[in-house]
Amino acid sequence: MAHIELENDLPGIRGLMAYRPETAGPLNALAEILLRDDNNTLTRGERELIGTYVSYLNDCFFCQNVHGALAGHYLNCNIDQIDAIKQDFAGSADLSGKMKALLNIAGSVQKGGKAVTEEQIALARTEGATDQEIHDAVLISASFCMFNRYVDGLGTAAPRDRQFYINRAPQRAEDGYLILR
Amino acid sequence: MAHIELENDLPGIRGLMAYRPETAGPLNALAEILLRDDNNTLTRGERELIGTYVSYLNDCFFCQNVHGALAGHYLNCNIDQIDAIKQDFAGSADLSGKMKALLNIAGSVQKGGKAVTEEQIALARTEGATDQEIHDAVLISASFCMFNRYVDGLGTAAPRDRQFYINRAPQRAEDGYLILR
Repeated sequence: MAHIELENDLPGIRGLMAYRPETAGPLNALAEILLRDDNNTLTRGERELIGTYVSYLNDCFFCQNVHGALAGHYLNCNIDQIDAIKQDFAGSADLSGKMKALLNIAGSVQKGGKAVTEEQIALARTEGATDQEIHDAVLISASFCMFNRYVDGLGTAAPRDRQFYINRAPQRAEDGYLILR
Repeated sequence: MAHIELENDLPGIRGLMAYRPETAGPLNALAEILLRDDNNTLTRGERELIGTYVSYLNDCFFCQNVHGALAGHYLNCNIDQIDAIKQDFAGSADLSGKMKALLNIAGSVQKGGKAVTEEQIALARTEGATDQEIHDAVLISASFCMFNRYVDGLGTAAPRDRQFYINRAPQRAEDGYLILR
């Protein structure tokens, strides 16, 4: 039961977006450009993985399952593999050095903007990250620090069965964030 | 000196927005609807004050000065009065009980979405806050947790002279967030 009367029973952020469509517009537009736009050298799976990891750090059940299922869909791996990456990305044999460096930066952004160090940026560059990839990793992390707080700060409800999110991921991957159904 | 090459010398988030206009669009649209839209029972000054307080909690110099100067402009008070509210809003004689309750919620959202309690929500209602006011206080706080991390996570430069922000506030108040100059 959410902290406010949403007048709908949509889960997580969907209920908030139906309640306040005026703010939903820019929020969905931001997600679309950051996570799905094709003009990006990070894959959709890589970008969803950054959002999943930050949602995990913020302990947001809804977001880490929505975006974890999407990351799994794009990266062709199952939820156990996504969980393993969330818990120890540095130890993953499946991630590139560049992705590990970007997840490292995203983890610092989750703590606070000032936690990002010159050394983390330098390492990302050494691993081949471009300025725009570093920019997007920071903004994806920052935006999930917003989305996670929005979802949990208003006490929204979310299905506990993780299969719910896995089942919905292919349709969401096809629709993107601008088509809501 | 920012962590990435912005190819401009604009301060704070402005430099990031010029670097990546594709994400600037939704970010500015979000600020405009949340902080400036007339269809809101919170005044522009009250909404800017919530953003200022959260930016203070996140120790973001640029954002707390931009939005503190705007809050002062709208609320017709000086920067010392804004500073006093940031440091002890509960002790302020100038704030309504409703605003104190909403700032209290915003402060919890800054810590994390789950930090918001039923008691804080109930108090806001007792003080006369509507569901939409509670919603907007949560989303303003959450969005500044993003903006602050974006600005500091990429190590942007900002003028240290606080008068710079005070001087610019009237023009920004007139232009809003969709006209950038």
